[in-house]
Amino acid sequence: MSVTEICENALAASAVVGQLTTAKKDQVLSDMAAAVERHRQPITEANQRDVAAARESGVAPTLVDRLTLNDRRMDGLVKAIRTVMAQPDPVGQVVKGWTRPNGLLVEQVREPLGVVAVIYEARPNVTAEVAALCLKSGNCAVLRGSSMAVETNAAIMTALSEAIALHDDVPAAAVQLIGDPSREAAVELMRAKGYVDLLVPRGGPALIDSVEQNATVPTVIDGAGNCHTYVDASADRTMATEVSVNAKTSRPSVCNAMETLLVHRDLATDWLPGVLDTFAGLGVEIRGCEAVRRVWPKAMEATEEDWGTEYLGPVLAVRVVADAEEAIAHIRRWGTFNAEGIVTSDLAVARRFAQSVNAGSVFINASTRYSDGGEFGYGVEIGVSTQKLHVRGPMGVEALTTVKNVVWGTGQTRVL
Amino acid sequence: MSVTEICENALAASAVVGQLTTAKKDQVLSDMAAAVERHRQPITEANQRDVAAARESGVAPTLVDRLTLNDRRMDGLVKAIRTVMAQPDPVGQVVKGWTRPNGLLVEQVREPLGVVAVIYEARPNVTAEVAALCLKSGNCAVLRGSSMAVETNAAIMTALSEAIALHDDVPAAAVQLIGDPSREAAVELMRAKGYVDLLVPRGGPALIDSVEQNATVPTVIDGAGNCHTYVDASADRTMATEVSVNAKTSRPSVCNAMETLLVHRDLATDWLPGVLDTFAGLGVEIRGCEAVRRVWPKAMEATEEDWGTEYLGPVLAVRVVADAEEAIAHIRRWGTFNAEGIVTSDLAVARRFAQSVNAGSVFINASTRYSDGGEFGYGVEIGVSTQKLHVRGPMGVEALTTVKNVVWGTGQTRVL
Repeated sequence: MSVTEICENALAASAVVGQLTTAKKDQVLSDMAAAVERHRQPITEANQRDVAAARESGVAPTLVDRLTLNDRRMDGLVKAIRTVMAQPDPVGQVVKGWTRPNGLLVEQVREPLGVVAVIYEARPNVTAEVAALCLKSGNCAVLRGSSMAVETNAAIMTALSEAIALHDDVPAAAVQLIGDPSREAAVELMRAKGYVDLLVPRGGPALIDSVEQNATVPTVIDGAGNCHTYVDASADRTMATEVSVNAKTSRPSVCNAMETLLVHRDLATDWLPGVLDTFAGLGVEIRGCEAVRRVWPKAMEATEEDWGTEYLGPVLAVRVVADAEEAIAHIRRWGTFNAEGIVTSDLAVARRFAQSVNAGSVFINASTRYSDGGEFGYGVEIGVSTQKLHVRGPMGVEALTTVKNVVWGTGQTRVL
Repeated sequence: MSVTEICENALAASAVVGQLTTAKKDQVLSDMAAAVERHRQPITEANQRDVAAARESGVAPTLVDRLTLNDRRMDGLVKAIRTVMAQPDPVGQVVKGWTRPNGLLVEQVREPLGVVAVIYEARPNVTAEVAALCLKSGNCAVLRGSSMAVETNAAIMTALSEAIALHDDVPAAAVQLIGDPSREAAVELMRAKGYVDLLVPRGGPALIDSVEQNATVPTVIDGAGNCHTYVDASADRTMATEVSVNAKTSRPSVCNAMETLLVHRDLATDWLPGVLDTFAGLGVEIRGCEAVRRVWPKAMEATEEDWGTEYLGPVLAVRVVADAEEAIAHIRRWGTFNAEGIVTSDLAVARRFAQSVNAGSVFINASTRYSDGGEFGYGVEIGVSTQKLHVRGPMGVEALTTVKNVVWGTGQTRVL
């Protein structure tokens, strides 16, 4: 099927999928989890073929690892579907409402977006997670995975389709996978205006660039994460060490990992050298401003470029600042609207930081690594928004809905 | 000042404007209303020069009328600022919040978008209204009016700036007007990525097309209004006549005017001919489907093109449908996510229509003409969204905010 045909089918199906009851959607999700469980062997075998092909063509080991569905990950995949099932249904939620002087009752009600498309890389779990999130929120899903995972995705899709087929009143086009792994197919999806209500690209800068160049459909960008942690003079020092070390080293390759540590000057001599020793002991290379290099001479010199770099690896930029205001200004200048953190025991400083830092998520006395749909309680996430419109930070089912106005009258007509 | 300089100043000022208290913003708005009142004469004189120039260059009378600031409109302009002042401040509103099992408290808090730009046509009231809406919501405004209104807008801007200058702690760049009326300046604004957080184009199809072609900044589109009213078999007939006539004829040139009337077949012989006589008497040309022409032969034949046309004038397409389902399907096929209405006394039909019609606003037993910021209680509007992401329907101050996550911890660190 062509991308256009897939999109047409999704649009037609969306009128039905958007009206399914919560009970029906949960039953399909339960059947999906069972079907994936039942198809464990064919999915695993398909995955082994994808992994073998990737190894043969010399794909980097980290990518091969992401592609691999071991037993634990297969369990996670089934569990993800059940976790989404357990989420509250956002559709039909009345967000607010009021009555006008003329008697008109305005209700603002959540409804599904319609057709949600996701372009993603070689993580097969995304196929099941996005399908589950879309169905729970009453949307039709159009999935476009990586060519590297083509057999795995097809095998997962077979299981999902089998579950959908158990229900006469649920259209097969509720979840569709684009078989064509070409770049042209991806661009066709980006340009399916009038069919796709939301496209979420989950991938590296090349994919984001391509979407920004080509997309005519509405998008939510899951972009860069140049995340900061500011350690205030008032911080509990043990907490400051634990939170910064966790933010940088628990998983340096992900978008919510810390890239720059900002330190109040009062901590430059007594706390900073110790924590930098800890980072160095964990294999993290330090690039510091002049004040950092004075107290910890092993640091390389940080340039402007460092403030703007998302290392996604064992490198940390460190800057000494005069106060919270300077830290806030640094973050407003260099941040990417993703996750930003502070460690402080000063209430006024905490409130000021929370109010002034215009990131998708601001963490007070907690690691930026918590910027995650699962950690927010959304079960799984469809991505992490780094834009300001529509939704910010981790996106769960609610991010896949829109709020319309329903106005109840008794025959009101408007005088000019 | 170049567009780029204006945008840079707005970005810098947004850090301050976003933190102003409600009391301070309301004081500035009050001073703005007083300043416009005080500058009534220079504003009126500037407007007379614009109007004279427009007449000389042969601008259409309807456009000259829109441009003209008579006494009543000057009153309205001052009143609009005071109405926005009286709105609740959306900034700092906690939309929701919850505590995670690990003790993290997630709060979702409204904050200003930052810099809001509006490109609009020759209605000088927009200058004051958008400035007020942006300030109330803590945003910096970048205004780009029509070349036709260049003197009027400059005179209004002088008054607004005078009010801002009374406050040492409010940056002059809180509200800025782009003086350059060229198309290049507009395109530069559309491409000011990283500076403009939201661009709302208020204008005809040519402007919308240009924005869709050129914009790299986030936009909310105030687009077409191909609005329908469906009259169900269960409708109160007097109400059905009043609501449809109001929807079509109270102001046919605006986006919330009805363009197609859908009528249940049970009403085709007894109610429809009478209402079509009424429309004809009001000078409305009728284009009908076959079933309409059988009962009212004066109707011209409606083609597929009619179902897709926003006439914005005294023409009405009319179609007889089998039931509410067929009406819903017609609207889902031809609607533009703007305003859609139904007249019915059947509860089940009303609920089904409200749920299935995926427009920005759905009106049950009320005229679609109520799709308007003032009528919704927003004071004035910055536009009417016809997209699904971020905000739908009439946009007031809340539409100019974004909801960020503020997460309060006690030193939590994440285990992989």
